[in-house]
Amino acid sequence: MTLDRSGFDTAGFAQALLRRASVTPADDGALGVVAGALLRLGFAITRLDFGPEGKQTPNLFARLGTRGPHLCFAGHTDVVPPGAGWTHAPFDGEIVDGRIYGRGAADMKGGIAAFVAAVADIVARGGLKGSISLLITGDEEGPGRHGTKDVLPWMVENGHVPDFCLVGEPTNPQAMGEVIKIGRRGSISAVITVRGVQGHVAYPHRADNPVHRAVSLAHALQTHVLDRGNETFEPSSLQITSIDVGNPTTNVIPAEAVIRLNIRFNDIHQGHDLAAWIRTVAERYAPDAEVETHISGEAFRTAPGGVVSLLADAVRDETGRSPKLDTGGGTSDARFIASYCPVAEFGPVGATMHKADEYVALADLETLRRVYGRFMEAFGL
Amino acid sequence: MTLDRSGFDTAGFAQALLRRASVTPADDGALGVVAGALLRLGFAITRLDFGPEGKQTPNLFARLGTRGPHLCFAGHTDVVPPGAGWTHAPFDGEIVDGRIYGRGAADMKGGIAAFVAAVADIVARGGLKGSISLLITGDEEGPGRHGTKDVLPWMVENGHVPDFCLVGEPTNPQAMGEVIKIGRRGSISAVITVRGVQGHVAYPHRADNPVHRAVSLAHALQTHVLDRGNETFEPSSLQITSIDVGNPTTNVIPAEAVIRLNIRFNDIHQGHDLAAWIRTVAERYAPDAEVETHISGEAFRTAPGGVVSLLADAVRDETGRSPKLDTGGGTSDARFIASYCPVAEFGPVGATMHKADEYVALADLETLRRVYGRFMEAFGL
Repeated sequence: MTLDRSGFDTAGFAQALLRRASVTPADDGALGVVAGALLRLGFAITRLDFGPEGKQTPNLFARLGTRGPHLCFAGHTDVVPPGAGWTHAPFDGEIVDGRIYGRGAADMKGGIAAFVAAVADIVARGGLKGSISLLITGDEEGPGRHGTKDVLPWMVENGHVPDFCLVGEPTNPQAMGEVIKIGRRGSISAVITVRGVQGHVAYPHRADNPVHRAVSLAHALQTHVLDRGNETFEPSSLQITSIDVGNPTTNVIPAEAVIRLNIRFNDIHQGHDLAAWIRTVAERYAPDAEVETHISGEAFRTAPGGVVSLLADAVRDETGRSPKLDTGGGTSDARFIASYCPVAEFGPVGATMHKADEYVALADLETLRRVYGRFMEAFGL
Repeated sequence: MTLDRSGFDTAGFAQALLRRASVTPADDGALGVVAGALLRLGFAITRLDFGPEGKQTPNLFARLGTRGPHLCFAGHTDVVPPGAGWTHAPFDGEIVDGRIYGRGAADMKGGIAAFVAAVADIVARGGLKGSISLLITGDEEGPGRHGTKDVLPWMVENGHVPDFCLVGEPTNPQAMGEVIKIGRRGSISAVITVRGVQGHVAYPHRADNPVHRAVSLAHALQTHVLDRGNETFEPSSLQITSIDVGNPTTNVIPAEAVIRLNIRFNDIHQGHDLAAWIRTVAERYAPDAEVETHISGEAFRTAPGGVVSLLADAVRDETGRSPKLDTGGGTSDARFIASYCPVAEFGPVGATMHKADEYVALADLETLRRVYGRFMEAFGL
């Protein structure tokens, strides 16, 4: 079986994508590059721009075939700002010593290029049995309010709910084949405003020091063991990210202190339970505190067997490594998808993502193309 | 014995002082009003302006008599800014219903007026046996770097070290005769900069959260019992006055957190011991922390017997109250004087000091005049 039979130029396609300066919320024609390639492969394409007039988020849904099984590939063409310190131009797609450089090479234009190439190989093979779709958004690195999150309900309404979704985020820390992500931790942040009674430090009994209450509260929060993790997830982690009072004087007890925190939590918890716990602890140490919480995603996990094992087999067969089924790290759009269908993530090596001189090795892109192709065949396409 | 035999107009003199808008560092002729009255009573007056050229702090030393025993009265003519909310003009010295209103009426132009009146009574009596001096500064409410602190060494050099010093600060909370201050707590402030390693909240093991270190450190400091006080002093009190990080994001662990604190300490401690203790605790919870400390005064206490009991007797005889010998509250210039001679503080009712519509009751001023006069006689003048 030749998995790269189509002769599709993965590197050239990746370069074309990298030359679009699609720093969120700009698109700069990046989605058009994807659409052009998919049109040539026979996909039906729908452009889905959601959000307020004039500030719409560009999204794209493309599907080839109408029958099951239906595999969806999800990704994003937007990138984080290049920042400073580059020795290669961030939007030139320069190839040097077997590496393509550019903002988004790893996160995640490289993954999109490898998947489109793998689809070209399947199309060249002929006889597609199920259907393949792509959900590509132009806002994953930004607030993401009108990206993947808004495309999914549209897919439900239009009969495009897939049987499985593969996200092409860079999951491998150092080498291809190390990690498949089958879940992500949830995330909740909180702002706690602790109120006291202002006064002179010489007369603390006439004041009520909100800093002392905030310190006791923060200490109780940060020393509490939320859980010890489980076979799939590492332990949940609470981080106090800021405490602010802004009192420049040395002799005044201030009136207010503000605590900010974030919890990355595993599937032992749900966001609203943690919000209630934060309120309970706040009530104990600072009864008049105002607590605002924001849940940006629940923890989720796709069962390791079934389709996930087909993906793991494809990875092992192409890379020689048995991938770890992991749930660590930050959030991705997989958290939205998990409410609709099973989802797993596998993509390039992420070591340089969000850094200067971000790159992906050409050999890794071709490995990824073959992993995706082998997985699609095993999936029954 | 008639203690107000001179016919000196205490209220009129207080009004003259209150009409000078001597908000630190302005003098507005306030020291000149004092000097004029003392010149008429026969005092030798030295104007002592210390500090950098063009920004000198005005001070005055006046002495009547050359022999011992030598009693010094210390005070200040500067006042804090009036602020808002007055129903009486703050610099008019208005008299309504037996009260003189104005910024400084209680703190402490009233005390100066009562003492000058008492001296006038002694002069009218004739036959002064020892000597009386006044140390009046124009910067007690401000930084005080070139006020009482600088006059004292000059007094040493010029043979004016008194046997006892009486400070006319408003010591009585609600009614004349309640409190004589015979000491003050010391004060040390600290700024602790806790350094960590910045990172993403999803990967706390790659960061070192300085907020958690700061919270643990602040918690250890604020829960430590420094002492339980003693017969003279209330327990020492540590107040965390500010914690600041300034991190607006919810997903970043910051690099630095700053703690500010102040300790009001009794004579069980010395400033440098507490500075060392703060460093030791900081070292335990935040080894790389930078600790800056500033000792603005050591705790001091004048023995309750001897001259203090003469003062307490005078207070009791004039007010009918047995004054509490107290060491609570904020600092005063008595902390500087304590290194040179025994010092006690007794003055008007302080309930309105630093507030809008500050006033002193005319009857209280006359009571204070008689307390001072009775004390001077008992002292042997």
